[in-house]
Amino acid sequence: MEKEFSYIFKIYPSSVDFQGKLTVASLVELLMEAAGRHADENGFGMRQLNEFNASWVVLRLVLEINSYPAQYDEIKISTWIEKIQSIKTIRNFCIENAQGEVIASATSEWIMMDLAYRKPKNLFSLQGFKDFATGKESTAGRLEKLHPVKGELADRLSVKYSDIDINGHVNSIRYIQWLCNCFDLSIYREKKIVRFEIHYLSELYENEEIKIFREEKEKNDFYFEIANNTKTACRARIKFI
Amino acid sequence: MEKEFSYIFKIYPSSVDFQGKLTVASLVELLMEAAGRHADENGFGMRQLNEFNASWVVLRLVLEINSYPAQYDEIKISTWIEKIQSIKTIRNFCIENAQGEVIASATSEWIMMDLAYRKPKNLFSLQGFKDFATGKESTAGRLEKLHPVKGELADRLSVKYSDIDINGHVNSIRYIQWLCNCFDLSIYREKKIVRFEIHYLSELYENEEIKIFREEKEKNDFYFEIANNTKTACRARIKFI
Repeated sequence: MEKEFSYIFKIYPSSVDFQGKLTVASLVELLMEAAGRHADENGFGMRQLNEFNASWVVLRLVLEINSYPAQYDEIKISTWIEKIQSIKTIRNFCIENAQGEVIASATSEWIMMDLAYRKPKNLFSLQGFKDFATGKESTAGRLEKLHPVKGELADRLSVKYSDIDINGHVNSIRYIQWLCNCFDLSIYREKKIVRFEIHYLSELYENEEIKIFREEKEKNDFYFEIANNTKTACRARIKFI
Repeated sequence: MEKEFSYIFKIYPSSVDFQGKLTVASLVELLMEAAGRHADENGFGMRQLNEFNASWVVLRLVLEINSYPAQYDEIKISTWIEKIQSIKTIRNFCIENAQGEVIASATSEWIMMDLAYRKPKNLFSLQGFKDFATGKESTAGRLEKLHPVKGELADRLSVKYSDIDINGHVNSIRYIQWLCNCFDLSIYREKKIVRFEIHYLSELYENEEIKIFREEKEKNDFYFEIANNTKTACRARIKFI
């Protein structure tokens, strides 16, 4: 049984920004796609979980980026489960370019959500899943706690049709797009994002009014909070170099 | 030489809406992708045009949709050039499901833009291109003129980083997402879009403040105008059934 799987993706024009480079949001979308295929092909994918009214939910993600692929480049995403605890599991990623150089790496934390009770289910109840734990760490480092932000209001928006995914809440990728939109093109011309961290805290729904707060704790190192009127939806960090 | 090309696409989770159906914006994105591949594989793609500082620009699109594919479905997009005039060319599409049933069709009008002068170039200067004209019409009907709209303000927004593509202006797909976002989820639960038309009139850039006007000319038949402070960026139509 293979525990680490690799998938090749071509970077299409819709995934690149004004400089022709893969966006952070599109890279995370491809990571989610690789995770989905890996789970699907091994009997613990979304469709299998849906059969007993459960779903995978990503809670935290850390992404380190050394260099950005361009339009029409091919990248290889390898993914594996690092460890499995009763409530959460760690999934890691390694991203290589066509020359086999590591251009990015990521680690992420997931729960299996019981869709009826909106609570995590015990992962050991997922037959055969525990055999996938490899113990292999990510070079992206560990998932650290992100602290509350008391910063400036960087953006405000309301949740629309195109933000909502099949689970009925705002898609996890959209949060990343919103955060990256807090910077002008001039910043992206001068700098690049080398580290991205996100910690999902609560769901967002249609027509909610959202505020995004930003605090530059150190030069080029920004911490964020996305909140609706009553609570924090996520905390995040974007580090430029 | 093949003049009509077909491409298979799988519908990934990132392309579906809250009901698990392919969105209109994502469908058009796939049409653009098919058009790009067809052009690329036959020597008149973006990369070839870029060599003499030109680019393809879509001016108008009409899309008829009979039924929507779901997440993980495969669809076949066939595309061909209907005709070529000195300044513009008509490209058509036929979209089939895995059972070979036609689920949608589209027609579109393009120019080859001279990037130095921001003016159309003569298409007969594109070597070998005229041999691709097939004369074959689309079942989506003709590209009709869209008239000015004097409707209600349906939305307002400002152009952000993620809206800008490699040409430095707002991506043509983003306009479609903005238009579809003018309706609540409740509308999509009850109805489906059966016809979508768009006529691109002028480019939009970073930080521009945009207004979207909407007029329901007949029941379930909406006409739109997207405008910045000085001019109309596009006119469009969304018909539900």
